[in-house]
Amino acid sequence: MLMTFPTKTSSGSHHPNTSPTTTAQRRLDTLSQHITDTTSATMSSEPVGDFGLIGLAVMGQNLILNAADHGHTVVAFNRTVAKVDRFLENEAKGKSIVGAHSIKEFISKLKKPRRMMLLVMAGKPVDDFIELLLENGLEEGDIVIDGGNSHFPDTNRRTKYLQSKGIRYVGSGVSGGEEGARYGPSIMPGGNEEAWPYIKDILQDISAKSDGEACCQWVGDEGAGHYVKMVHNGIEYGDMQLISEAYDILKRGVGLSNKEIGDVFAEWNKGVLDSFLIEITRDIMYYNDEDGTPLLEKILDSAGQKGTGKWTAINALDMGQPVTLIGEAVFSRCLSSLKAERTRASEKLQGPKPNFTGDKKEFIANLEQALYASKIISYAQGFMLMQAAAKDYGWKLQKPEIALMWRGGCIIRSVFLKEITKAYRQNPDLENLLFDDFFHKAINTAQAGWRDVVSKGALWGIPTPAFSTALSFYDGYRTKDLPANMLQAQRDYFGAHTFRIKPEFASEKYPEGKDIHVNWTGRGGNVSASTYSA
Amino acid sequence: MLMTFPTKTSSGSHHPNTSPTTTAQRRLDTLSQHITDTTSATMSSEPVGDFGLIGLAVMGQNLILNAADHGHTVVAFNRTVAKVDRFLENEAKGKSIVGAHSIKEFISKLKKPRRMMLLVMAGKPVDDFIELLLENGLEEGDIVIDGGNSHFPDTNRRTKYLQSKGIRYVGSGVSGGEEGARYGPSIMPGGNEEAWPYIKDILQDISAKSDGEACCQWVGDEGAGHYVKMVHNGIEYGDMQLISEAYDILKRGVGLSNKEIGDVFAEWNKGVLDSFLIEITRDIMYYNDEDGTPLLEKILDSAGQKGTGKWTAINALDMGQPVTLIGEAVFSRCLSSLKAERTRASEKLQGPKPNFTGDKKEFIANLEQALYASKIISYAQGFMLMQAAAKDYGWKLQKPEIALMWRGGCIIRSVFLKEITKAYRQNPDLENLLFDDFFHKAINTAQAGWRDVVSKGALWGIPTPAFSTALSFYDGYRTKDLPANMLQAQRDYFGAHTFRIKPEFASEKYPEGKDIHVNWTGRGGNVSASTYSA
Repeated sequence: MLMTFPTKTSSGSHHPNTSPTTTAQRRLDTLSQHITDTTSATMSSEPVGDFGLIGLAVMGQNLILNAADHGHTVVAFNRTVAKVDRFLENEAKGKSIVGAHSIKEFISKLKKPRRMMLLVMAGKPVDDFIELLLENGLEEGDIVIDGGNSHFPDTNRRTKYLQSKGIRYVGSGVSGGEEGARYGPSIMPGGNEEAWPYIKDILQDISAKSDGEACCQWVGDEGAGHYVKMVHNGIEYGDMQLISEAYDILKRGVGLSNKEIGDVFAEWNKGVLDSFLIEITRDIMYYNDEDGTPLLEKILDSAGQKGTGKWTAINALDMGQPVTLIGEAVFSRCLSSLKAERTRASEKLQGPKPNFTGDKKEFIANLEQALYASKIISYAQGFMLMQAAAKDYGWKLQKPEIALMWRGGCIIRSVFLKEITKAYRQNPDLENLLFDDFFHKAINTAQAGWRDVVSKGALWGIPTPAFSTALSFYDGYRTKDLPANMLQAQRDYFGAHTFRIKPEFASEKYPEGKDIHVNWTGRGGNVSASTYSA
Repeated sequence: MLMTFPTKTSSGSHHPNTSPTTTAQRRLDTLSQHITDTTSATMSSEPVGDFGLIGLAVMGQNLILNAADHGHTVVAFNRTVAKVDRFLENEAKGKSIVGAHSIKEFISKLKKPRRMMLLVMAGKPVDDFIELLLENGLEEGDIVIDGGNSHFPDTNRRTKYLQSKGIRYVGSGVSGGEEGARYGPSIMPGGNEEAWPYIKDILQDISAKSDGEACCQWVGDEGAGHYVKMVHNGIEYGDMQLISEAYDILKRGVGLSNKEIGDVFAEWNKGVLDSFLIEITRDIMYYNDEDGTPLLEKILDSAGQKGTGKWTAINALDMGQPVTLIGEAVFSRCLSSLKAERTRASEKLQGPKPNFTGDKKEFIANLEQALYASKIISYAQGFMLMQAAAKDYGWKLQKPEIALMWRGGCIIRSVFLKEITKAYRQNPDLENLLFDDFFHKAINTAQAGWRDVVSKGALWGIPTPAFSTALSFYDGYRTKDLPANMLQAQRDYFGAHTFRIKPEFASEKYPEGKDIHVNWTGRGGNVSASTYSA
């Protein structure tokens, strides 16, 4: 099969013996590289590939190596084609990996129905590559997987668009960082379910395993895979914030050294908190710079974001779901980034000095419980959100499978997620994680310590936004009569927004479910306001 | 001037002697009413009007009556024209108010440059009326004010669109409920500044006054007026949530009766918390149902929302500003709306029983301080957000004027806002409200009581999401070294996201401002992860 594009290789193509002289020329050449075949004839174009991957950044390279290790022949392509050759000559050497130097060659080298993954920047590049694939030989029944960090509404749109062309589109969250990609990430595919039987083998081969089960299961329709990955990232923000607060309390509240704090996390990693993030926190606490002092204390306390936590918080607001812990975690990063302003504020605004008295061991045990209980709340909130989204978007979401996928490979992997999997397997219709026996007992046991920590944080002047909001959520969630009756009374008072009556007080005058307005001021008409004048 | 539209009154027009027989016909007729003049010849069409208003719901009617009281002749129009006649025959009788029965008549009755306000539902109706105005004689230099609750990006768009046609567009927040509209609301106009000299007189005439100053000043460009109104509403959510938490603590924590709680609010209304919302809370606490028991306790604790609080929280996330108190207030309403789920949870999930010991008077004084300090934080956050938005959107925002506008007429009016006005007048470039001497002293005095309340809420099992998040913000804001260094270390560990060095630890190896990656595991390459396996 010939790999040339007579109609597209005219002026801008890169001929081996002509070196581009202007920047514009070079740009044009780069652009044409991924739609033109300019390579030597030694490159075969037989359909030998089981799987194709576009985008040879570290994640992409590692996923290819991972798939090759599992016996799959992988076709590799990259926008800057020089990267393909470098990869073939180095990391990929001697493995069942073949290169492609044009999209057309890439497609022609794949067995049908073709299975391929895009691992390119979220946003326009994904749309661009989809168009290039469509223009260069993608056929009905072929399967395109977007393995990047796309925002789920984009995946909704793309799934529908490609379905209309007979292409099966899958948006898949992939979590686990570079090493996860190489040796087993968590993979969360959703989209056109027809694709699943064709891609299940290879995705489950390369994914992490937890107790022998693949951390890759079908998530649901349209953008459900990317949605679940988004919530995963939001929960990751929450877990990290909780750990940071614990570290701050151990450092400034209890007065421990970094080595001692490392020992605490090492100990916690043997118990209910056993997880990847606790493990790396231990390592970070122990890590000294060349001068023998902890590197951590030299790192600027100004946290970055890539947006997925923010997306989760915004989606929670849109869904009307109280996902407070992720919200506070995102806002904490915002506050941290105001380093210069905080430094000035620290010279002006006063507060107490923490003065630890009492039994350190006991308090550290309380802190462990605070972290554990807050984490339970955060996951309960995350699952509330996914449940509401599934209902709102009309997706079938498999909660036990989601917990299973997060058990291995990804950043939030933990022993804890085994219990969540178990809870949802026992009862897939569980209304809320807090109704599960294991979790409501766990949080009940934990709450005394948790309350002690939140209370001390407030008295010591050490911020605990995530611990506190988790506790407020727990106390609000378990309260039959919240003070929101006051909000409704106020809204009716100043804006005639009406209220409803509690069922136990329903009467002929105030029937249940009816919108009621009261003339609070005793003055005329429908106008409800006040004489207040500031 | 003839008010007929030969080209548009063809098939669907409502002829007096033909009654529509089908729903479709009736719909078509309704649609045609506002572009057709079907009225009697008795209605004059001389340009007598100083001001026009479209939309005769209660707010609209009251604003018209208010303007007429101030000597302006107002032209009134409504989509359902029967409402115009009803209004003229009743509330408007004997006042300088004239009616219009078509958009064309409405426009023809206004003196040039025409000044008019839309008070219709936010969204499509605003765009529809703009098009109708354009089609029916609006001329260059005319001024259209949208006084509804539009989302500011819509106002940005409409300002630009109408500017391209030579029309001066103003988006104005109007707050104060029905009574405010009648006797003096807070008015927050922004958009095309060329309009301001022409509308200043009438808008300031009808607005509330505070110490003789009009609670209506030019806010800024494009959608700035609606933006500031949105933040006002977000702050209103926050104030209401804080009051609800105080009520809950007084009820369940201290064990006071509704009458006693009313007395507390009455007392607070004489001090630093003196405000409209505290005043109406007092009234609500005292308000008994016919059976002599407090009505409040019968009101369903499931709070509604109209979306502006949510918009503020989403905008805060988009702006990267830690507006945590409004966020928690919105989430609290979400949680309140899960009444059935909470009721089930209340039977399953346990917690402590509040057991108040100590001096009630002293604790109530602490609670007052907690409310005051939290309120300071909420307003500081709100102004942070507006400041960031002004920068991001390129608006000139007048902070002293914003505080002044909120002092009277609107829901959040209070004595407190006088101090904010003063602070920004003294120093318009004040970095943060907490840097103002009055406020940092106030919060310093308040903090002991505030910490006591947050700490007790946690121990008692009474949720204090807004009090707690405010305190965490304060403690975070005044902390030079937050534990966000841990977040950065973790992000670099698992994702090679890099970190920066604190200036005081900058060295040749780790220069300031440089993105640094460390090989945390001691293992090869750029890959940073861990062996953790769940």
